Amino acid sequence: MSLTKNLRLVMNKSNGLRQLSTSIDTNYNFKTLKVTAPSEYVFHVEFNRPERRNAMNPTFFAELRKCFEQLKYDQDCRAVLVSGKGKGFTAGLDLTELSQMASMDIEDVGRKGFQFQRVIEDYQTSLTSIEKCHKPVIALIHGHCIGGGIDLITACDIRYCSKNAWFSVREVDVGLAADIGTLQRFPKITGNDSLVRELVYTARNFTPDEALKLGLISHISEDESALINKGLETAKIIASKSPIAVQGSKINLVFARDNKVEDSLKFVSAWNGGMLQSEDLIKSAMASMSKEEATFSKL
Amino acid sequence: MSLTKNLRLVMNKSNGLRQLSTSIDTNYNFKTLKVTAPSEYVFHVEFNRPERRNAMNPTFFAELRKCFEQLKYDQDCRAVLVSGKGKGFTAGLDLTELSQMASMDIEDVGRKGFQFQRVIEDYQTSLTSIEKCHKPVIALIHGHCIGGGIDLITACDIRYCSKNAWFSVREVDVGLAADIGTLQRFPKITGNDSLVRELVYTARNFTPDEALKLGLISHISEDESALINKGLETAKIIASKSPIAVQGSKINLVFARDNKVEDSLKFVSAWNGGMLQSEDLIKSAMASMSKEEATFSKL
Amino acid sequence: MSLTKNLRLVMNKSNGLRQLSTSIDTNYNFKTLKVTAPSEYVFHVEFNRPERRNAMNPTFFAELRKCFEQLKYDQDCRAVLVSGKGKGFTAGLDLTELSQMASMDIEDVGRKGFQFQRVIEDYQTSLTSIEKCHKPVIALIHGHCIGGGIDLITACDIRYCSKNAWFSVREVDVGLAADIGTLQRFPKITGNDSLVRELVYTARNFTPDEALKLGLISHISEDESALINKGLETAKIIASKSPIAVQGSKINLVFARDNKVEDSLKFVSAWNGGMLQSEDLIKSAMASMSKEEATFSKL
Amino acid sequence: MSLTKNLRLVMNKSNGLRQLSTSIDTNYNFKTLKVTAPSEYVFHVEFNRPERRNAMNPTFFAELRKCFEQLKYDQDCRAVLVSGKGKGFTAGLDLTELSQMASMDIEDVGRKGFQFQRVIEDYQTSLTSIEKCHKPVIALIHGHCIGGGIDLITACDIRYCSKNAWFSVREVDVGLAADIGTLQRFPKITGNDSLVRELVYTARNFTPDEALKLGLISHISEDESALINKGLETAKIIASKSPIAVQGSKINLVFARDNKVEDSLKFVSAWNGGMLQSEDLIKSAMASMSKEEATFSKL
Amino acid sequence: MSLTKNLRLVMNKSNGLRQLSTSIDTNYNFKTLKVTAPSEYVFHVEFNRPERRNAMNPTFFAELRKCFEQLKYDQDCRAVLVSGKGKGFTAGLDLTELSQMASMDIEDVGRKGFQFQRVIEDYQTSLTSIEKCHKPVIALIHGHCIGGGIDLITACDIRYCSKNAWFSVREVDVGLAADIGTLQRFPKITGNDSLVRELVYTARNFTPDEALKLGLISHISEDESALINKGLETAKIIASKSPIAVQGSKINLVFARDNKVEDSLKFVSAWNGGMLQSEDLIKSAMASMSKEEATFSKL
Amino acid sequence: MSLTKNLRLVMNKSNGLRQLSTSIDTNYNFKTLKVTAPSEYVFHVEFNRPERRNAMNPTFFAELRKCFEQLKYDQDCRAVLVSGKGKGFTAGLDLTELSQMASMDIEDVGRKGFQFQRVIEDYQTSLTSIEKCHKPVIALIHGHCIGGGIDLITACDIRYCSKNAWFSVREVDVGLAADIGTLQRFPKITGNDSLVRELVYTARNFTPDEALKLGLISHISEDESALINKGLETAKIIASKSPIAVQGSKINLVFARDNKVEDSLKFVSAWNGGMLQSEDLIKSAMASMSKEEATFSKL
Repeated sequence: MSLTKNLRLVMNKSNGLRQLSTSIDTNYNFKTLKVTAPSEYVFHVEFNRPERRNAMNPTFFAELRKCFEQLKYDQDCRAVLVSGKGKGFTAGLDLTELSQMASMDIEDVGRKGFQFQRVIEDYQTSLTSIEKCHKPVIALIHGHCIGGGIDLITACDIRYCSKNAWFSVREVDVGLAADIGTLQRFPKITGNDSLVRELVYTARNFTPDEALKLGLISHISEDESALINKGLETAKIIASKSPIAVQGSKINLVFARDNKVEDSLKFVSAWNGGMLQSEDLIKSAMASMSKEEATFSKL
Repeated sequence: MSLTKNLRLVMNKSNGLRQLSTSIDTNYNFKTLKVTAPSEYVFHVEFNRPERRNAMNPTFFAELRKCFEQLKYDQDCRAVLVSGKGKGFTAGLDLTELSQMASMDIEDVGRKGFQFQRVIEDYQTSLTSIEKCHKPVIALIHGHCIGGGIDLITACDIRYCSKNAWFSVREVDVGLAADIGTLQRFPKITGNDSLVRELVYTARNFTPDEALKLGLISHISEDESALINKGLETAKIIASKSPIAVQGSKINLVFARDNKVEDSLKFVSAWNGGMLQSEDLIKSAMASMSKEEATFSKL
Repeated sequence: MSLTKNLRLVMNKSNGLRQLSTSIDTNYNFKTLKVTAPSEYVFHVEFNRPERRNAMNPTFFAELRKCFEQLKYDQDCRAVLVSGKGKGFTAGLDLTELSQMASMDIEDVGRKGFQFQRVIEDYQTSLTSIEKCHKPVIALIHGHCIGGGIDLITACDIRYCSKNAWFSVREVDVGLAADIGTLQRFPKITGNDSLVRELVYTARNFTPDEALKLGLISHISEDESALINKGLETAKIIASKSPIAVQGSKINLVFARDNKVEDSLKFVSAWNGGMLQSEDLIKSAMASMSKEEATFSKL
Repeated sequence: MSLTKNLRLVMNKSNGLRQLSTSIDTNYNFKTLKVTAPSEYVFHVEFNRPERRNAMNPTFFAELRKCFEQLKYDQDCRAVLVSGKGKGFTAGLDLTELSQMASMDIEDVGRKGFQFQRVIEDYQTSLTSIEKCHKPVIALIHGHCIGGGIDLITACDIRYCSKNAWFSVREVDVGLAADIGTLQRFPKITGNDSLVRELVYTARNFTPDEALKLGLISHISEDESALINKGLETAKIIASKSPIAVQGSKINLVFARDNKVEDSLKFVSAWNGGMLQSEDLIKSAMASMSKEEATFSKL
Repeated sequence: MSLTKNLRLVMNKSNGLRQLSTSIDTNYNFKTLKVTAPSEYVFHVEFNRPERRNAMNPTFFAELRKCFEQLKYDQDCRAVLVSGKGKGFTAGLDLTELSQMASMDIEDVGRKGFQFQRVIEDYQTSLTSIEKCHKPVIALIHGHCIGGGIDLITACDIRYCSKNAWFSVREVDVGLAADIGTLQRFPKITGNDSLVRELVYTARNFTPDEALKLGLISHISEDESALINKGLETAKIIASKSPIAVQGSKINLVFARDNKVEDSLKFVSAWNGGMLQSEDLIKSAMASMSKEEATFSKL
Repeated sequence: MSLTKNLRLVMNKSNGLRQLSTSIDTNYNFKTLKVTAPSEYVFHVEFNRPERRNAMNPTFFAELRKCFEQLKYDQDCRAVLVSGKGKGFTAGLDLTELSQMASMDIEDVGRKGFQFQRVIEDYQTSLTSIEKCHKPVIALIHGHCIGGGIDLITACDIRYCSKNAWFSVREVDVGLAADIGTLQRFPKITGNDSLVRELVYTARNFTPDEALKLGLISHISEDESALINKGLETAKIIASKSPIAVQGSKINLVFARDNKVEDSLKFVSAWNGGMLQSEDLIKSAMASMSKEEATFSKL
């Protein structure tokens, strides 16, 4: 396009686009997370405090957010697996921590309230970073998935578990209303509100079978190893697709959950006005005709 | 806090807080409802017109509203069971009544319309009082649950039924679009919109099994007696938990159903800014560490 | 009402109401659709390009819209069946077409974007005409139901399929985010968001059994013939009911999906302020008492 | 309509419609309010604690709610004036009261929070009863209108003031965020958000001229007597119009404020489907043609 | 892009994009409207029933819709003027017509209600077509602008009037709540809700000065001729700008009115993802640097 | 509270609350911003690129966000002034930059679209950080305020300008729809939508007088020096109030803008359930009674 070329001559193109956006680190060295790439374009984020049953502490929340804010724009990532190292997925928020919050050394109720809201907002932002990450995130749950763990997995896209998994919306048992996602997302991704509320109000454990019938998960694997394999398999398929198509789908699914059908239709129309002009469409169409697999550029 | 004390000296504390809020009766003597307390903190509201198959008449709607507006603030109540005396849950709105409305002695269509809207609004407010009651409400359905009965149970938190239960969204069969909750809540608490609409448009009966698969109920008991026991068991568990936690959960679940995830997260953050400062948190934490059961103050 | 009569004398009533509203054709001759009336008040719309596997082309979208905009007000129609002629329901959007769009002869990205949005808006409006049609629409799916087919059936009221049906949210495989309804409606009518997203991101085929568990369909028939019979049976029941009641129910269900419960309750109250004055209410009440079937005037 | 007649024969019409809806008292004897009817169909509600500068206490809130819930359905009322007796409109919430709340004798922050929310909800419901009253409410402000007074007038339909009026969003000065309507309604009914926020954050007084430019009021009268006359004049005009039209307009304006244009258009369509069949339309049309004034039946 | 070229070889490009979208007539011959093009890219739509004071009848509504649905996609149009021929803008809905609707020959209230809703929906769709037209629409009001005229101008983008203009929200005087836009849009585009409601409830006339202070209009011209000139001047400026920029602005302003700020920001981000790649950006930038006027391709 | 004390004994309180939340730097050394504290609790943020007319470049956006994310939690800050150094407020986005974006070296439209959205999202987040900062922000505009400058000031709380100020919504003139806030916020904070749209579509300059009438600003100062004084004066008043009250008011005003009145009332009730227990209430009440000024603890 000659217009562009002319334009380039007119001005000195001293600093490129990269500088336009806030720069993002791309190292994945964390204390509480282990991040690997088991397959091309597939990342695996493991909760890495098995000695504490992967309990969620401040460092965990801060690192989880940093990790997913990086993955959002990491061109080498097209799908993400999330699982826990050790005996289970996560034991949820540390009681230790909760107690510290409760005994925080501020006298005034109002000022303490502001501090609590700040912490809650931090944790919410951390879990929501999974939802805001453009790439599909698959939670692979084995063993215990308790309290904050439910908040976390309801912010993921896909949920599989192994037979030995068990779940509990535990917050009521520690004296509070769940405040980092469960009450907000759990009923919207499942199909039996009566059961959801029973689980919330009683804080009782529930099994993979119940979770499957409820619609919380969509697959039960025999054991942890099969679970990882199943997750990886799905992730690989996703990673083989046009990233324009997959990430656009996630962004639109999230928008549609919170908006009227009509507004969501307007949104996807604005979205696809540009995106249908991507080469991925043509590559996909040709691959489909020739029965060969397409290779998509990085996004 | 000495500030408070100083303040008290400054002014005469003639009338206490009770006067600040509209006073609420706390008697539970009703014509169409029987209210008992089968266990500490558990209330049981029974529809008490078995000779009329617990059909919903004006008195019923007025009393139901009064009952749940009282239960909302009754410190002795932490969970509520709802069931029907006699052969079934409820036969829904009286045809007699509906006919009277249709033959109301007002000539002008506009004025009649205002009257109808007033009645509809009254009935809606009655059923919505279940949702606005802070305490979890468990509907226990045996026998028939028809028309207005569906409107009613969809406003409850949890739904169990016995094997002999049967359901019908009957309004189409009496010539109207359901207007006191079914069309508004039924699809939002279940997981198969195709079935919901079939049931609405055909007004056909459906069984506990279908209701379970649909996600309308979460448990089927063998018979009515087992049903009451199961309901009571769940209610007792709920009643043993921190009322701050349980009631906060309900309030947040209801808010979240009608709002975007992001706004609901803001709401629960504002909520917990204060509520995390409750003693229930600490009591729960200590109970959890000591494996003993906590006792929570009235709320 | 003498007022009305007086009024008539005052003015010349030259042109009747029909002229007030935009006139609607009522012929159902289409190239890509075959429209029949298998039973009183029941219409059957068949996709009629079996040689192209009922792929959705521009003519199809235009005719589908015209068809359902007519059915919306056609007094002889109270329920609609939708199915595909030939080996399956529909193969979705033509790849041919998609490729043409991608290779459209407009240089400027912005102008091309406007064109794309126009096409998307056209197609969205076409499918949404099913939702805006006041009469319940039953999708009967046999064989393949792919891509645009999913967009289409999620805009219908009720979904049945035969054992040989198979489904695929195929858009990711052709390089785009689904933009004519699937991402917007699919998660709202089903009960397992994890599975919905897996299906969207992987574009894999899924079976009637999966669709049933997911809550996408509500009945599986043995074969295509049984499927048509089952659909017809349901349609006949619907057609026998008060059209005021059935159509009011659909309009309110659609409104309720996109609005808060409280606003939807206000809407149905405004709606029924007038509609409860319909003769259908009285006819239904009398029929119910006399156990005879009511006959309802055209609507 | 013979159908209706037949129906009446079939059943015994023992209890009429009045019984269907919760009965409403229609006495207007209050301690803190003086209610008169200065003209046919026009009510005047005066705040009647001049010795306390009409400060809003619990009795006031309870009575205000009762008053407007009655006016909502009182067929003799078509427009309402609201003003304060004595030197000004209202001094807002009593500091006394606020202090009592702050020093309420409950130890636990969570339980105290529930109590506070209950009081806030009571007061909100009280002011919102003005908005929910179907009849237009005209606030006539002279002298001071402070704190809770702003909350109150923003819930009214029309606001006039006299030259000696002065206003203040005072809540920040008593240490809290306004919680019974000002923060929620003030910016939505005016035209300068910058000024609104300045007034909220500084709690400074502002004048009729500022209020007029801001769009808070729509008329300034010379003195209190002229103000009452002006209000009465407007109220009489309103009372002379079709109550179907006026009250329908208010209900639709309130709905529209909180909803999208498209949804509000759907709502008014549902509304007018019935209301256009009122005799008021014909009466109005005939009156308009004959240049005579119409007389409308009670509503 | 060679991919595109390859693709073209693979398939036969028999029918172009034009066929993809529902075809739009582009003749502007109407009975009730006169359409001219006073300047390049500027259209002028005049209401052309001066002998009936431009009263809005069914033909008018149908033609207005057709006109603006054409203008939406007409590449020769970038801005639209709307005015009335003869003594004023429009007298609003014909009383004749309204009376006919009221005396429509359908007995059943429910069925009549459906008919009314259909007419209301038709008229709403007609006026909303102005809002959905991508091009800015400037209403130029002289003389009377009554009832439906207010509904109409509130759906326009910009409103100017001449000194002799006068306005009236007249619906209450004809016995109904305004149902084709005024109650829904009027308060959202102005800055004094108190005045808006006074005008709605009293149906009184108001002047250009009041309209200006209210924020309904943004300019008063000396007379009709100056008004047309002023409108044309603004329209020419708009027509000289990038159509990508102008039309994108309108689409985003309309979306933003009905959505939360955060969602509207997401929408414009999706929109500009494609639109920032338009040549108009570069042309504008270069024109801005060179102080020469840019010429933009048709859109 | 002895419970808390017991709890502290049970566990080791090794790391305090500070660690719970993501740590925030509190240095205010920026390249493009100069930050000072002209008075206790008042911060002044000056755009500090006068040689580039304070044009907004990537560094500016990144620093602005960092600055306001710090101010949000900085206990020494209770009110913020924003102004531009040199001849004007800001010239908006650099054309240089915009051109670079337009000529970015990515071929594929889809991938380029993702990059653009990322930049837009970054800039939006930057400006929204002003809105999310709990402390009132006062924009003081002198000289030019163009393009991105309008986006910026509409995200502030209060807007004052000097007589020599001039404004322009300039985006249309550079070929794009404004995408970082103007189209989303401008119409919601002003009172004349007709003028807003004229300004958006024509990109013409407008004066302080027009801005005042429009409701964009709320005060005009004689010159720059008077402007700063006026801003400082308002900021000092705000800073002298209870920070609990002021910041709670801002948070609730922002929530209320985007939500229905009823939901916003629920939100403020949840908010004040805790906040009314703050000592600020009592301090304010006592100060009010004793006519002395209260001193509030840091927040």
